[in-house]
Amino acid sequence: MAEETSYHMTPDEFRRRGRELVDWIADYQERVASLPVFPKVQPGEIRAALPAEAPAQGESFDEVLRDLEEIIMPGLTHWQSPNFYGFFPSNNSGPSILGELLSAGLSVHAMMWSTSPAATELETHVLDWLVDLLDLPDAFRSDSDGGGVIEDTASSATLCALIAARERVTDFASNDDGCDGRIVAYTSSQAHLSVEKAIKIAGLGRQNLRLIDVDDSFAMRPEHLAQRIKDDREAGLLPAFVCATVGTTASNGLDPLHEIGRICTKANVWLHVDAAMSGTAALCPEFRHIHDGLELADSYCFNPHKWMFTNFDCDCFYVADRAALINALTILPEYLRNEATESGSVIDYRDWQVPLGRRFRALKLWFVLRHYGAEGLCFHIRQHIALAQEFASWVDMSDDFNLAVEPPLNLVCFWHRAGDEFTKQLHQRLNASGQLYLTHAMLNGRYVLRMAIGQTHTEAKHVEHAWQLMCAFASDLEAEGLE
Amino acid sequence: MAEETSYHMTPDEFRRRGRELVDWIADYQERVASLPVFPKVQPGEIRAALPAEAPAQGESFDEVLRDLEEIIMPGLTHWQSPNFYGFFPSNNSGPSILGELLSAGLSVHAMMWSTSPAATELETHVLDWLVDLLDLPDAFRSDSDGGGVIEDTASSATLCALIAARERVTDFASNDDGCDGRIVAYTSSQAHLSVEKAIKIAGLGRQNLRLIDVDDSFAMRPEHLAQRIKDDREAGLLPAFVCATVGTTASNGLDPLHEIGRICTKANVWLHVDAAMSGTAALCPEFRHIHDGLELADSYCFNPHKWMFTNFDCDCFYVADRAALINALTILPEYLRNEATESGSVIDYRDWQVPLGRRFRALKLWFVLRHYGAEGLCFHIRQHIALAQEFASWVDMSDDFNLAVEPPLNLVCFWHRAGDEFTKQLHQRLNASGQLYLTHAMLNGRYVLRMAIGQTHTEAKHVEHAWQLMCAFASDLEAEGLE
Repeated sequence: MAEETSYHMTPDEFRRRGRELVDWIADYQERVASLPVFPKVQPGEIRAALPAEAPAQGESFDEVLRDLEEIIMPGLTHWQSPNFYGFFPSNNSGPSILGELLSAGLSVHAMMWSTSPAATELETHVLDWLVDLLDLPDAFRSDSDGGGVIEDTASSATLCALIAARERVTDFASNDDGCDGRIVAYTSSQAHLSVEKAIKIAGLGRQNLRLIDVDDSFAMRPEHLAQRIKDDREAGLLPAFVCATVGTTASNGLDPLHEIGRICTKANVWLHVDAAMSGTAALCPEFRHIHDGLELADSYCFNPHKWMFTNFDCDCFYVADRAALINALTILPEYLRNEATESGSVIDYRDWQVPLGRRFRALKLWFVLRHYGAEGLCFHIRQHIALAQEFASWVDMSDDFNLAVEPPLNLVCFWHRAGDEFTKQLHQRLNASGQLYLTHAMLNGRYVLRMAIGQTHTEAKHVEHAWQLMCAFASDLEAEGLE
Repeated sequence: MAEETSYHMTPDEFRRRGRELVDWIADYQERVASLPVFPKVQPGEIRAALPAEAPAQGESFDEVLRDLEEIIMPGLTHWQSPNFYGFFPSNNSGPSILGELLSAGLSVHAMMWSTSPAATELETHVLDWLVDLLDLPDAFRSDSDGGGVIEDTASSATLCALIAARERVTDFASNDDGCDGRIVAYTSSQAHLSVEKAIKIAGLGRQNLRLIDVDDSFAMRPEHLAQRIKDDREAGLLPAFVCATVGTTASNGLDPLHEIGRICTKANVWLHVDAAMSGTAALCPEFRHIHDGLELADSYCFNPHKWMFTNFDCDCFYVADRAALINALTILPEYLRNEATESGSVIDYRDWQVPLGRRFRALKLWFVLRHYGAEGLCFHIRQHIALAQEFASWVDMSDDFNLAVEPPLNLVCFWHRAGDEFTKQLHQRLNASGQLYLTHAMLNGRYVLRMAIGQTHTEAKHVEHAWQLMCAFASDLEAEGLE
């Protein structure tokens, strides 16, 4: 056997290439503000520049870096630009990138305690830290009956919560016999698509998803929820699951958790709270009111990968009764049996999620929390919210733009008084300029622009520039209309 | 607003810390062979060494690296050790680590084409490359009606395939009305736990999962499958989904795809093929027989993160009819609408999976394929299989050990002639020595050791040493028994 032959990258080559790539990323951080946020490419253009056939022989890393620069870079939407205001911030940071690098370098599995004990224990530990940092209910701490886990996304957390709720309400009969079309779920008309997706995946059927009305601030109306639960119960159905939202996708609406929680407790319905982006605000005591009533929830999630300087994917998912979740998802085949699991004294996170395998994602959270400390995180979150509030005040004072709703945190929704078609054209021109990137939503039937402020390097000057562009482009559009 | 204050890591600090960490990882690669593969820690020991409270103020990266070395390292199971033979290889490589680093550094989202066009197009491209490299059916290419996507794990691929099958058989009524307890799925008694987990999650109920008998090589018996489908059909049930396995978890059994495929085609049942670890062998023409009959499958997956030098997570999932999958999973809310999606000329991978968000995982696959080329990958895969076959020959010739089954590829299952209790004790001693790591399975009611050969740096000398240890420890145990 020709042991001497090897195609592997040696540790020394890894040192050299790793340093090159670290430098490339640092350069990227320095230049990203100057790049067009949204690329000017047509569908298929990137693929056309790539060779049709996979390489038969290995190529040098120099060639790969060259193609990265020449082919891939012109086709990227730069989420890390300080001029990116679309969707949600997805902000990142040096310590998080390094945590992900270390996770890849170690490449251990956190699916069971025994597959790498430190990976599981560090995960439990930082999730307990976050209970303290966000002042979440004690029921979510691992030394209670509950605990936290890192999922990839809030979509997956919602699905897992729904499965646990489905099994709790049927005494695990759904797992055995399948759904029977009687299990009902509730969320507001403003909830994220992941709730409907979960309902479909879990076999409940979307006919059994009730979309509850919202009030003027786009928050769920509890009395409507109570009525629908009552109606369904009387119709012989099984109300099982409510997903409340802290910070809806379209407009950052805040569902009233306390009232919803009381209804759920009384009706014995599982309450899941999705605070994907906005939960991070609770790092700051003055914003913790967004979680008022959370002690009545059965489960909760927020995404450090949305607004806590942690690269995707990293969703923190908490349950108050971990046995309900684990019993709904666990299967223990012989090939996974081990002494630690049998002892019952360890956490096996594979039972808390859909997949079996798991990366060591706690590392990046640990790096972020230790680099910034609570103080650093709060400082930047406060700054984002202050920038958004200042931007909202400009909109509010403007004769041309209107706020769609008072922005509770870092997301400002607004529209041009000339109406939907104008706002839409303005939107397209702004994005086409490459100087910033916004996404949109429909609120009360109106096309609104969403300005989500929270990128790591977004400062006052960027927000001011964005506002100047909006005003200037709007003037141009109006002038064209007058021709 | 105090713009001058910032807690962020500057690009220059990132350069410095990034280089340190790259060096740390290169050092790890050089020393991992000398570390105990399995750590000697008790549950709770790692957590006890960590501060109970999260840091209020930021800390230096030096402190983090110190704790990594002193607290985390002693608690890791070293999957990247050349002496790791447990579960599946989960082999990694320099180019893959660098691809993951770049993905974290860019931190763009590949959930829709428009959220970063190059991320979607590179993904489609490398998945087409892999159709060529593994000589998979043309129906899985993106220029047919099918195509490929990167999922996190084979568990998720199986769930997505099941959802598509569930909707196809009910004409999308399950998505609307929920499951009705009549949908039936089939897999062999040797299939991975993910099939049962998917059946539970998707609301079918495990009563509706039929475990099909296997033959002496632990491969599914097609005639038994045909009979069960017929029986269910006659009972008024809806046979919907078969999961066949290429390389079962316990023993690497190969289900006969051609016969199973013919049964599924005739019965109009969705055939999903799970080749999580073993699919990689098809890089080499001489092992492509494992996929004979795959042209009859509706979907297929294999995991580069198991045996193709790509760090977790990276599962390549292919469907022959992408519309069936997309229609089962898509939901398009206003806030995701965009010109490219409306044009119908792009792929939005969010509709191919459970979560919404997606990392730029194609980068690491691209890096791996370009670094090794087909030639380099084949060389190492052949070497792993040759090492496993050689090891199997030693077992076969030994008076003390027996093969549980002829190993088709890189996984050898064997037992000590002194029986289960002896084999189990031997297993514990071997793992406790820290000199290697094995996992086990039950085959025909017998406790067997699984020797999965495929770690990146496993060479003949490591396998020889493992065999010497096994023989020596067995002798010791026998001697103790004789006392």
